[in-house]
Amino acid sequence: MARLVMKFGGTSVADLDRIRNVARHVQREINAGHQVAVVVSAMSGTTNELVGWCREASAFHDAREYDAVVAAGEQVTAGLLAIILQNLEIDARSWLGWQIPILTDGAHGVARITGIDGARLIERLEINQVAVIAGFQGIGPDNRISTLGRGGSDTSAVAIAAAINADRCDIYTDVDGVYTTDPRMVPGARRMARVAFEEMLEMASLGAKVLQVRSVELAMVHNVPMVVRSSFDDPEAIDSSPGATPPGTLICDEEAFMEQQLVTGIAYSKDEAKITLRRVADRPGVAAAIFLPLSQGNVNVDMIVQNISEDGKTTDITFTVPQGDFARARKVIDDQRESGEISCELVSGSEDVVKVSVIGIGMRSHAGVAAQAFNALAEKGINIQLITTSEIKISILIDAAYTELAVRSLHSLYGLDKKQD
Amino acid sequence: MARLVMKFGGTSVADLDRIRNVARHVQREINAGHQVAVVVSAMSGTTNELVGWCREASAFHDAREYDAVVAAGEQVTAGLLAIILQNLEIDARSWLGWQIPILTDGAHGVARITGIDGARLIERLEINQVAVIAGFQGIGPDNRISTLGRGGSDTSAVAIAAAINADRCDIYTDVDGVYTTDPRMVPGARRMARVAFEEMLEMASLGAKVLQVRSVELAMVHNVPMVVRSSFDDPEAIDSSPGATPPGTLICDEEAFMEQQLVTGIAYSKDEAKITLRRVADRPGVAAAIFLPLSQGNVNVDMIVQNISEDGKTTDITFTVPQGDFARARKVIDDQRESGEISCELVSGSEDVVKVSVIGIGMRSHAGVAAQAFNALAEKGINIQLITTSEIKISILIDAAYTELAVRSLHSLYGLDKKQD
Repeated sequence: MARLVMKFGGTSVADLDRIRNVARHVQREINAGHQVAVVVSAMSGTTNELVGWCREASAFHDAREYDAVVAAGEQVTAGLLAIILQNLEIDARSWLGWQIPILTDGAHGVARITGIDGARLIERLEINQVAVIAGFQGIGPDNRISTLGRGGSDTSAVAIAAAINADRCDIYTDVDGVYTTDPRMVPGARRMARVAFEEMLEMASLGAKVLQVRSVELAMVHNVPMVVRSSFDDPEAIDSSPGATPPGTLICDEEAFMEQQLVTGIAYSKDEAKITLRRVADRPGVAAAIFLPLSQGNVNVDMIVQNISEDGKTTDITFTVPQGDFARARKVIDDQRESGEISCELVSGSEDVVKVSVIGIGMRSHAGVAAQAFNALAEKGINIQLITTSEIKISILIDAAYTELAVRSLHSLYGLDKKQD
Repeated sequence: MARLVMKFGGTSVADLDRIRNVARHVQREINAGHQVAVVVSAMSGTTNELVGWCREASAFHDAREYDAVVAAGEQVTAGLLAIILQNLEIDARSWLGWQIPILTDGAHGVARITGIDGARLIERLEINQVAVIAGFQGIGPDNRISTLGRGGSDTSAVAIAAAINADRCDIYTDVDGVYTTDPRMVPGARRMARVAFEEMLEMASLGAKVLQVRSVELAMVHNVPMVVRSSFDDPEAIDSSPGATPPGTLICDEEAFMEQQLVTGIAYSKDEAKITLRRVADRPGVAAAIFLPLSQGNVNVDMIVQNISEDGKTTDITFTVPQGDFARARKVIDDQRESGEISCELVSGSEDVVKVSVIGIGMRSHAGVAAQAFNALAEKGINIQLITTSEIKISILIDAAYTELAVRSLHSLYGLDKKQD
C-alpha cells in the first residue's frame, strides 16, 4: 500500500468524458490498495475565460477579487470528479483551499503556500476516502481565497504530498514523460526514466514546459518523488500493484541514482531578448546603476555577462530578458542614460536569439563538458553570443536561426539519441 | 442615510455590460449617502450549465458535491462586480457564504439559513465599503458549501437585510414591479405601489413568479420592507435621495397601509393537475390512507376537497398536484387501491385545469367577496370545479380554456383595471 497524490491538469479534465477517464485512473490505484488524494485544475479554457472577464471588468483589477473569480474553475472540476468517483462506488469528497486549509501568504494572484494542515485529509485517506482537491488555490491571512499563479496546481499537488507524507506525487499530463530534449525538434529524443530534482529544475526553468519550476523546488526541499506521466494512457492497462514501476519519468533525489549520466538533457528557450551596452564607463557601482532600476521596473533579467575591460576605462555589458520585458527594459536603460546615471556609447538589442542549455548533475565532477559543447557548435559554424554556467548547467545564447542545429548537435554529442533498433 | 440591500438576479448580471449597469445602480445609492450590501445571482445560463454537468456526471449525484459545483457561479459574479465597483472608485469587497458566514442546515441543495453573523458586514458598511455577496449559498454544519435551492438569492438578500438591520431590501429584476394580475393576459393590469407581505406570499406561491415565496416569508417574519423594481431602468434617472419613494412595488407590513383595498390582485397557476376518487368508502382514516402515501412519495398536494357523504357510506375526494407530480400521484393511488388500502369506484384525472386566486387582506373584514367571484364566473358560463379559501384568498379550479376570461372578469369585478385617461 502506498499513499499517492495524483494531479491532473486542464487538458486532462477538459470535459466530462476526460474527467471520467481521470476517475478510472483513480479507480485503478484504489483497486491496487493505495490511498489517493487527487489534485485537479480547471477544465481547460475555463481559467482563460474567467481571467478574460476580470481584465474586461477592469484593467487594474483587485487581486483579491481576481482570486475569488478564477478559483471558481478548480472548484467546479473538484466537485464533478467527486460525483463521478462516487458514481463508480468509490468514496470521495471534494476539498477547496479554505476547507483543508491550504494556508498562503497574502500575495493574491501569485500567492505562496505557507502551510498545509494534512491531518483531516489523512483521516479521510485512512478510511479509504479519496480526497479530490481543487488545485491552484489556498486561503490567505485575510481569510480570502488566494491563487498561486498560472500552473500553480503542480505546486498544490507537491505541497499536499508533503503535508500528507505521500510516497509519490504523480503529475498526469498530456505528454508521457520528460524527454532529453524537445522531441518535436529532435526525433531521436528519448524519454528519461529518471531525472534528478536539480536537473529537472534547470529544465523546467529553461523551457521544458512539462512542470512548473516551483513545484520541482518544493518537491526537492521535501524530497517528494514526482512522476510525470500521461493521462491519456488506457487507465486499466497499467500495473499499479505495489512495487511496480509507474510509466513516465521519475523525478527524485540524485542519491537514488545508481550511476550518474554526464549530461541528462538539452533544453532551449526562445523567449529571450538580448540587450548590449557598449563602452560603459567602468567604475564601481555601474552594474547597480543598470540592474537596480531594471528590477524596480519588474524586468526579469536572466543571463548577465560583463567582459573584462579592454582599455581599463570602458567595458561592454550584455544581458537577456524575456521578450515581453524587452521594450520596458530598453526604456529603463534609455531613462538611465538620459538622466546621466549610466554613460555608454551605444545600446543595441535583439529578439532574434535563443538560449540553449546543456544540463546534467554529472558535469559537476567532469571537466571538459563545456569545452566539448563550444567545440561542437564551432564545428557547425554557430557563433556563441553569450555563455553562462552553473554547477550542473551550461547556457549558450545563439542566433535563433541555429536553434535546431545546435540542439540536435548537442543531443548527439552527449550520446542522448535513441538507440537504433 | 439608509442601509440598503440591493439584489440582482441572473438576467441583471448576464454579461459584463449588465454587471456594469448594476454597478451604476449601486453608485447612485452610494452617491445618495446610503450604505449598500449587494446580493448577486450567477450570470444567467451559468447555473443551468453547472447543474447540467452534475446531472451528466451522475444521475444520483451527491448533494454536497452538487453544491460545491453550482455555488461557483455566484462566486464569479460577486468578484466581477467588486472589480467593476472598484473601477468606479467605489470601495467594495466580495463575500462568499462561508466568509460571512451565512450558516445553513445540512440539507445540501435545498438548505435553509439558520443564522447570519452580520457584525463583520456592518463594520465594512460603516466605513462605506460596499459588500458584494454571493447569493444562493451558505455553509453547512459540515463546513461545506450549501446552496438554498433555485431562486435562493432572494432569500439570501432578505436574510442579509435582517442580519444587518437594513432599512430596505430592493429586489432588482426584469420587471418593474408586482402587478394586480399578469399584464400579458390582462392589458388593464396595474402595477401596485404597495402590497402587504401576506398578500405577496399568496401571489408568489400562486404563480406570480416575481419573488421566491421563502424570501417573502422571511421578510414578513423579520419585517424587512422589500421593493420589487427594474434593473433595466436608467440608473442615473432615479431619485435615491433620503425620503424619495423608490420606483416599483413596496412589499411591507399591512400596518403601514393607510387604507385597505378589498382585493389586491388576481393570480393564476397553470401548473395544476386534478385527481378525483369517486365513491371512496367513507370511514375514519381514509384521508390518511390517501395522503400519507402521497407525501411519502414526495407528491406535493395543494388543494384538497372532500364533499359531505351523500349516502353516508361513500364520498368523493378531489385534490390537485403540480403537473410534474401527476403520474407519480396516480401510481401511488393505484398501488393503494390494489393493496386494498383504499377502496373507491373510479379514479379520474385531468391536467387541463387552472387555479385562479383572488387575493386581498381586505377580504378578512368584508363578507361577500367569494360570492361575488362565484357569481361573476357563473355569468361568464365558467364552471367551478373546486374551491378552497383562506382568510385572505379564494382559489378556484376551472377548465384551463377559461383562464383568460376568468382572470379578466375577476380583475374588472374588483376594480383593479387601470384608470382610462
